[in-house]
Amino acid sequence: MALLITDPKLKSWVDVPEGSDFPIQNLPFGIFRYQDQDPRVCTAIGEYVADLFILSEHGFFDDLDLAKGIFQEATLNAFIGQGKEKTRAVRQRLADILDDDLEEWDASELRSFFLIKQTEVTMLLPLAIGDYTDFYSSKEHATNVGSLFRDPERALLPNWKHLPVGYHGRSSSIIVSGDPVFRPNGQFLEDGHVAPIFGPSRRLDFELETAFVVGKNSKLGQAVSTEEAEDYIFGMVLFNDWSARDIQKWEYQPLGPFLGKSFASTISPWVVTMEALSSFVCSGPVQEPAVLPHLAFRGEKSYDIQLEAILETTDGQRIVLCQTNHKYLYWTMVQQLAHQTSNGCAIHIGDLYASGTISGPGQQALGSMLELTQNGQQPLVLPDGTARTFLEDGDTIILRGMCQDKGLRIGFGEARATIHSNAVKA
Amino acid sequence: MALLITDPKLKSWVDVPEGSDFPIQNLPFGIFRYQDQDPRVCTAIGEYVADLFILSEHGFFDDLDLAKGIFQEATLNAFIGQGKEKTRAVRQRLADILDDDLEEWDASELRSFFLIKQTEVTMLLPLAIGDYTDFYSSKEHATNVGSLFRDPERALLPNWKHLPVGYHGRSSSIIVSGDPVFRPNGQFLEDGHVAPIFGPSRRLDFELETAFVVGKNSKLGQAVSTEEAEDYIFGMVLFNDWSARDIQKWEYQPLGPFLGKSFASTISPWVVTMEALSSFVCSGPVQEPAVLPHLAFRGEKSYDIQLEAILETTDGQRIVLCQTNHKYLYWTMVQQLAHQTSNGCAIHIGDLYASGTISGPGQQALGSMLELTQNGQQPLVLPDGTARTFLEDGDTIILRGMCQDKGLRIGFGEARATIHSNAVKA
Repeated sequence: MALLITDPKLKSWVDVPEGSDFPIQNLPFGIFRYQDQDPRVCTAIGEYVADLFILSEHGFFDDLDLAKGIFQEATLNAFIGQGKEKTRAVRQRLADILDDDLEEWDASELRSFFLIKQTEVTMLLPLAIGDYTDFYSSKEHATNVGSLFRDPERALLPNWKHLPVGYHGRSSSIIVSGDPVFRPNGQFLEDGHVAPIFGPSRRLDFELETAFVVGKNSKLGQAVSTEEAEDYIFGMVLFNDWSARDIQKWEYQPLGPFLGKSFASTISPWVVTMEALSSFVCSGPVQEPAVLPHLAFRGEKSYDIQLEAILETTDGQRIVLCQTNHKYLYWTMVQQLAHQTSNGCAIHIGDLYASGTISGPGQQALGSMLELTQNGQQPLVLPDGTARTFLEDGDTIILRGMCQDKGLRIGFGEARATIHSNAVKA
Repeated sequence: MALLITDPKLKSWVDVPEGSDFPIQNLPFGIFRYQDQDPRVCTAIGEYVADLFILSEHGFFDDLDLAKGIFQEATLNAFIGQGKEKTRAVRQRLADILDDDLEEWDASELRSFFLIKQTEVTMLLPLAIGDYTDFYSSKEHATNVGSLFRDPERALLPNWKHLPVGYHGRSSSIIVSGDPVFRPNGQFLEDGHVAPIFGPSRRLDFELETAFVVGKNSKLGQAVSTEEAEDYIFGMVLFNDWSARDIQKWEYQPLGPFLGKSFASTISPWVVTMEALSSFVCSGPVQEPAVLPHLAFRGEKSYDIQLEAILETTDGQRIVLCQTNHKYLYWTMVQQLAHQTSNGCAIHIGDLYASGTISGPGQQALGSMLELTQNGQQPLVLPDGTARTFLEDGDTIILRGMCQDKGLRIGFGEARATIHSNAVKA
């Protein structure tokens, strides 16, 4: 093992197709089910999942002092709870097992036991999510929404540049890529009316976001500084914060978004580790005015992650709705976590902290239909010429994310979901 | 067993002092720790806890078809998960065991094994709380806060009478009576400034609330109607929604309360069952305009629960801050749950749904310092003549709740916590 995992020259004996999200430099973690087996922990390599339970049963992790049973769990929480030192060691061992240097750790003869085609397994929600926060950290998005919902002259509220605005979200409605999204019922106002009606949302939207996964518990009363924060961040997923704009608009004052969000949020099944993303750290937007000391940080804390949202319709049309980048975010993850804990709020392994919609400069970098269509006033035109404002039943939204540089590509897989007509009784 | 549990004539062979919160008609559930034992499920009778694990080991529940191990758990979730039919049967059996008719189920000879003085045990947080919602269901409170934070002319926003406004709260900061509360740090504006400072909150407040505990899971995409809702509500606790008004005021627009709330919420340790409260159902405020059909309900769904908040200072002063009643709430629990699930949001066993501050008519029925002191402008005068606006380090707030009628008294115990100076690094 002369090469670092992040070295683009490292190769696996498992075939990894050109453009795959999952080269040996990635090695994300997930939970899969194969046939009628119990859920297990896996990583991804090329077009395969690698079953970590089988590898552990064959003794490949015996010297790593891991707790028993952590690879035969329905979530990653117990594995993540082993701590970064051990999860890093597992990732290093996986690289040793999968790299084309078969002298030290050779699992190639076991390939039929621990490698399964991704198309043959079901990827499950990888986390038990105790608490979930949705931040609002894109200046472009906050400005766009403030302009559309309130007043273009005062689009950013006075607090926005002083703290990463966020709200508590609903953990119970977080689902994994592939799960159906049901169009929510709810209350909203029809144009020109003052009394609401109740029925299926007419302004169903996606939001292109990412979320980070907490990998270490803090205690109530304990603040995690921006300096300490990276030790608490295990990895990242794609996050589609589905939104019903009509419900949201009617309900959100004064206590914030509620039922306009809590019907579904789709995450990608693979938790990409911060180690895999380490080659893609970059600088972010200048923060002006300067933040207060508890939110200040040293060094580069933004990430160059290319993101896109794709719409597929029932009649086979496919259109890229949005191309943006994580690095546009005004607030960094270490600031979000420092803010979250600055009042002593406890964070726990498996918690999710979503970025908020990641819009960027330009019309192509708008991460929601609300922004892309100016709240429905400027419909998108699909390839067949039809106009589209908000999302329709049967529409599929696919979020994708990838880091690319100098021959190295670290991908997130996808967060995909199709909208179904509402199954809820009206 | 000729008498119903709710019959005031039912007596226990265990001594229950006059005015106890825990007569045989109550039988709430909680989790206790005694010496170095693992946590166990218990009920309360007079000044004792009754250890349900010991009773189960002695076969008292053998015929009730309960899952193994549910009484030796750190939370009530597994017990509650047995379903109302079984939890009701356990409560009935406890009444049989504890009543003074010792012919059928006599545990009196085992009293030294299963009864422990409440003063000798530690009551623990009784629930694993997946999601927590805080509603805003008192018209008096919403009107008062709207007047103080915004505009007396438009204190209630247009949506308020059409739906039970609420927001997602933070599960990880819910603590149990007796746990310390640390004064939070946070950002806020000083008077006349436009840039915030960061430091310990200067406007720390309590909020007198109750919360109900969900006893049955729903599925994502499934609405629970007002008619079905009672089947999903297991019981109730007292809830102190500690609030840092300066932090809250600066942060809450546009996405709602966040760090001004998420540093601590104190609940009482005993979950009082809806069966124990069944004698205290009453009618609530008239809802005008009429609610939409999905929020309509039949019959009486309010509860006559007397509530009070008491302040104890470090120098031994004690003052009743507030006396109010659950029945003043505009929105009922069945409406809150129907609203919460109307978009298909899934609810889970152990979820908490808090009422929002329960203020009522009159100065004595205001459930927060914000309202009692008109946002600090009209300080309270303590017995020793000193003025008090918001809460100070060393202050203890005690919430109490009790139902009383025709010789029957069902109490909630208390939710008590003392404020400690902030332990968070500034």
